[in-house]
This record gives sequence, C-alpha cells and structure tokens, in this order.
Amino acid sequence: MSKNTIKWTKRDKLKTKPDESTLPFGKIFTDYMMKMRYEAGSGWSDPEIVPYGPIELDPAAMVLHYGQTVFEGLKAYRNENGDVQLFRPEENMKRMNRSHRRMSIPEFDGETVLKALSQLIDIEKDWVPSVEGTSLYVRPFVISTQTHLAVHPSDSYEFYIILSPVGSYYPEGINPVKIQVEDEFTRAVKGGTGTAKTGGNYSAGYNAQEKASKSGHAQVLWLDAIEKQYIEEVGSMNVFFKINGEIVTPALSGSILEGVTRKSIIELLHSWEIPVMERKISIQELIQAQKNGTLEEAFGAGTAAVVSPIGSFTYKGVAYKVQDGETGSLTKKLYDTVTGIQTGKLDDPFGWTKVIHV
Amino acid sequence: MSKNTIKWTKRDKLKTKPDESTLPFGKIFTDYMMKMRYEAGSGWSDPEIVPYGPIELDPAAMVLHYGQTVFEGLKAYRNENGDVQLFRPEENMKRMNRSHRRMSIPEFDGETVLKALSQLIDIEKDWVPSVEGTSLYVRPFVISTQTHLAVHPSDSYEFYIILSPVGSYYPEGINPVKIQVEDEFTRAVKGGTGTAKTGGNYSAGYNAQEKASKSGHAQVLWLDAIEKQYIEEVGSMNVFFKINGEIVTPALSGSILEGVTRKSIIELLHSWEIPVMERKISIQELIQAQKNGTLEEAFGAGTAAVVSPIGSFTYKGVAYKVQDGETGSLTKKLYDTVTGIQTGKLDDPFGWTKVIHV
Repeated sequence: MSKNTIKWTKRDKLKTKPDESTLPFGKIFTDYMMKMRYEAGSGWSDPEIVPYGPIELDPAAMVLHYGQTVFEGLKAYRNENGDVQLFRPEENMKRMNRSHRRMSIPEFDGETVLKALSQLIDIEKDWVPSVEGTSLYVRPFVISTQTHLAVHPSDSYEFYIILSPVGSYYPEGINPVKIQVEDEFTRAVKGGTGTAKTGGNYSAGYNAQEKASKSGHAQVLWLDAIEKQYIEEVGSMNVFFKINGEIVTPALSGSILEGVTRKSIIELLHSWEIPVMERKISIQELIQAQKNGTLEEAFGAGTAAVVSPIGSFTYKGVAYKVQDGETGSLTKKLYDTVTGIQTGKLDDPFGWTKVIHV
Repeated sequence: MSKNTIKWTKRDKLKTKPDESTLPFGKIFTDYMMKMRYEAGSGWSDPEIVPYGPIELDPAAMVLHYGQTVFEGLKAYRNENGDVQLFRPEENMKRMNRSHRRMSIPEFDGETVLKALSQLIDIEKDWVPSVEGTSLYVRPFVISTQTHLAVHPSDSYEFYIILSPVGSYYPEGINPVKIQVEDEFTRAVKGGTGTAKTGGNYSAGYNAQEKASKSGHAQVLWLDAIEKQYIEEVGSMNVFFKINGEIVTPALSGSILEGVTRKSIIELLHSWEIPVMERKISIQELIQAQKNGTLEEAFGAGTAAVVSPIGSFTYKGVAYKVQDGETGSLTKKLYDTVTGIQTGKLDDPFGWTKVIHV
C-alpha cells in the first residue's frame, strides 16, 4: 500500500517530541490522527489522516447524552531492528466490531482500518519511543454524532485513531499491588454491556475505585453482579490465579471483557504445557486456597500493564496475602515473555507481531 | 434576580422560529444555552448564557472514552396566562446531584442552576410554544473534559442546558402501544448505574429496542438482571399496572430510575385515595392477572410522553392484551391531570409548578 492511497492533510508545524525517559500514560499525543465517518445510506467513508486537533460536536450530539461509544487499546513497539511492530492488532479490530454489534453501531472493515493505522504509524514513526518499557499507545474510538435527543441508535458516527507515546507502566519495576474485593457496586451483568469496550462500563467503576483508593488499595476486584460470589475482573484487567500448580481464570461468562492479553497468556500457558482452566472461581474458593497455602500467585492482565502482580486482596475488611506479597515466578516469566515478544526481543513463534511496512 | 446577575454573550442574529404545529422531538434548538465549568481546585464556575453552538473537545477528552456523563430532562410550558412554567424542576436538580454522586462527578448547587435556567428560559420565552401538547424541552447535561486516557474520574467538567421546542408526543392522540418483554438483554443491575441518569444506561438498551421494533413492538419491558422475573421499567419510562382496582409499580430496587412523573403519579393516586403499592411484581404475576381478567390497565410514565398506555405485552412470543388494547380510564385521567397541572389548565394543589419570574 503506497502513501498515496490515503488522504493525508498535513499540518504546518510539527510538535516538539517529549523526553522518552519521563513519558506519562495517555497525556501526550502525536501530530496526526486517523478519521473516518459513517452516514446512514452511504456507510463508512474512506479513512483519512488529519492533524491531531479538536473535535467539534453539536451540544445535542448523541455521544454527549446516551453513551453510544466504543473504544480499543493496543500498543506499537520499537523493535531491536529499529522497526515498529504491533501486537495482534487484528484481535482488536475483531473485538471492536463485536463491541459495535452490542452497541448497535454499524460494523467496519477491520483490514481497511488496519491499513490506515499502519500508514498513520508510519507517518508518526519518529514518535515511537525506544527506551526500555516504552511504547506508542494506539487508541481507536467511535462516537455517535447524530444531533437528536431521541433515545435510539445514531445515524452518523465518527471513528478516530489517536496515538500517545507512553512510558513504562512500572517506572520503578514490576511490583505487586493491593486489591480490594468490591461487594457493593457492580461493573457489569450478563445481558448488559460488560463484554463490550464501551465507555459506560468504565465510569460505572469509579465509585468503587475511589472507595478502594481511600483504603489504600490500587485496584478493585469485581465479583459477579448476581451472586456477588464469582470473580470477574480486576480494575480494567482480566485476572489469573495459580492454585496448586494450575492456572485458573474466570470463564467468559457474558459480563467479562475478552482481553487480548488474557487470550495470549492462555495460549502461552498451553504451549508451556502448564494446566490452565477457564472456569467460575468464587471468592470463597480463593480465600480457602490462600488459607491452605495452595494460592501460589495472582495477577491482572491487560494492554496497559501487560501483567500486574497482585500482592494481597482484601475482602470484607480482611487482607489476604499472596506469595508473601512478592511477584511470583510464573507471573514474572509471563510478563517477560509477553513483553519480550511484543518488543521483538524474543522470538514470536505464534506470529503475534506485525511489523509495520507501508 | 435581575438579568445583570448572569453573564450573557449575545449572538448577532437570532434563528427563525419553527412552525409550532409540526414540532419534532429534540431536533430544533433555541438561540442560547447555559454553560458552566468545573475545574479541580476552583470548583464550579458561575453559570453563563452563551449562543447555542458547537462544543470543542480534545480527541482525548474523557467523555469520548469512558462515559462519565449525566443528563436530565424536564419541560417548560406556556400556561393560560401566557406565562412560562416548569414542572417540579427542583426534583430534577436533586436527582441530577444523585446521578453525579454515582458517577463520581462533583455535585453542584441546584438553586444556582435553577436561577440560571429561569434566566435562560426568560431570554428564550418566545421559543416556548403554546399549541396544545407542545412544550419547551429542557436538557441539562454534564460531560467530563479532562484530556487523559487514564481510567479515573475527570478533574474538569462542562455543564450545559439546551432548550428544544417540542411537539406533542401523541400528534394523533394518546394511543396504546405494544411492548415486548425482554428476556435476554438487561438494562441495569443493583450496584450498577441504573438509578443514575447516565448515558451508558440508554445505549445499553439499543440492541433490545431494535429487536422489539423488528417484531412490531414500540418499547421494551425490562426485567431484573438477576432473576429475569421482576418487572423494572418500560423503555426509558417507569411502569404502572392496575390490577383488581389497585395500582402496582415496581419498587425502587437499586436498578430503576426514580422518575419525577412516577413520583407525581403516586402522589396523585394517594390524593385520590386509590391504593398504590410500590413492590416487586413478576412477569408471571402480570400474566396471571391478564389471564384471570384482573389486569385492568397498564402504562408507562416519564417526562417525554408523560403517560403512555400499554395495549399489549409480548412474553416469549405470546402477546397478552391489556384492556382490549384500549386506553384505560384511570390512565387517561392521570394523563389529563398531570398535563393539566403542567400546562396550568388545572389547579396545582401540590405546588408542583414554578412560574418563571426573572
């Protein structure tokens, strides 16, 4: 695909690039963004590349009222050869279309968007940092733009991809965090929007997150909405436990996001012949395993942190330590392997990475 | 309060006002809107009145990603004296602050906003229609504006009120609708955001709404997310049933919106000494009542339609008629009384209406 196949509106002056050693998460954005539009009757327009800049919305635009939005998150890495590579981007495109279906937003052609993303990243390649632990965070998102206060799906949408160079999620190294098991608020329920990456699922968790922070916890461990018993997710990550040599992660029950990192970890464990079970796991089973010494490790898994060790969990005021609060060896190995493949330091036997060639 | 107490930025040219006899719902907006801002550290700014026009948002503004929004809906009516009056606006301010708490948005002073709203409506009084069944729909809404892709409450917000002259919800007279009982998708669950007027609750229902429309139903009747048995709401309205002379409406269970029209209807029924119960009601109980002839009436209640008679409900493919598909006499009396009080045609013994005096 040549650069001529996508419309590119250039800006007069490029931004100054930030210091790679002190990059925050999701606060600095590159010079350009991808944009495409949907209109009823004509479908999705061709993607184009435009200067990163404000979006103008009518005050009655549906996105500001009824939450009909979808987003994704993935990362581009500078590999050892100096090339830029993405991690399983087609998985994000597939999941985004699944989210679209749940939110009554018309589906798009994932290949077209991936081609446009490749061109955008190629244009912005000097923004991809190379310091250890850094990456270029890629945020595709779709908003509903019809100017109408009626409660029904929009007849027009805008689809953007913005890019943000981000630092290591662990500037001081990977360290276990304390989590709080939430038994009042819920994130999602079967039949709801929990499997979709839509805005409302995230702000729904703010009350619980604030409560957890106040008591010194980094994240919330969500339980199912119905029995308030089965473990679902941790913060906005999937969660894994090592119990008696076996890895357990909550099955996709209809209220859990199907994480790309989750899927990759399950596939890695299979390849290592480590037993991994996707099944229901209750908070009582977890406490029992902690008490009898069989709870060996616990960690969250998601795009932002990749793998995030859990040092303890608090349920109804009682804190339960995991692995004496240290990072488990399998947790560390998974972190090193996934990030190694993502950055090209390790071989990629699975064909997960996609080097950007424009 | 004099006009000088609020900053008012005038526009050069006013819009042409629409034909009052053909007003749509929520598509036409007046010349001005109210705006105020929140910044961490300084709190909410004074409200000001500015020309109705586009909102500019950074592509990384939180509202476009994580759904941290709240809105309200109320109506202003032209009364028999030609004055403009609002219906229980302080109830909307209270509920909006409750929604703010659930969505981790800082609360605001309801009196300040109501004063600003009165001034806005006074400025726009020529936009308030007077044809039978018309009104000026008032839409306050708050969006999160921090430019940061992290999943946490925003540190800045914008609060707007926009105004839309709207036609009768029933241009051809009040007519019973067919509704479909939804047994797959869910709107909300206890511990979630169902009691808050936040965007995500509304788009969460689009899949079910589309399914209902395809099978010829006007609205969805929502069941509880846990047992899929107890009735919650109809579309985005509260729901009432008349069974054997007694009125039943689902109790506020933690996943149902506390409607202002719902509250007003309950208070009216009390004043008429008609028994009204706020309690759990299952779909099986409803079907049983329909079968044994004790289901006398059914209707939805909300700001947009005020009272919306239900002619039949379909559950698992079977349609159950209510009152032979006709509007019940109590339904009609409630509609006439509430709209009569709202428009000033009837006395207001409850002190519900508030005439705008600036």
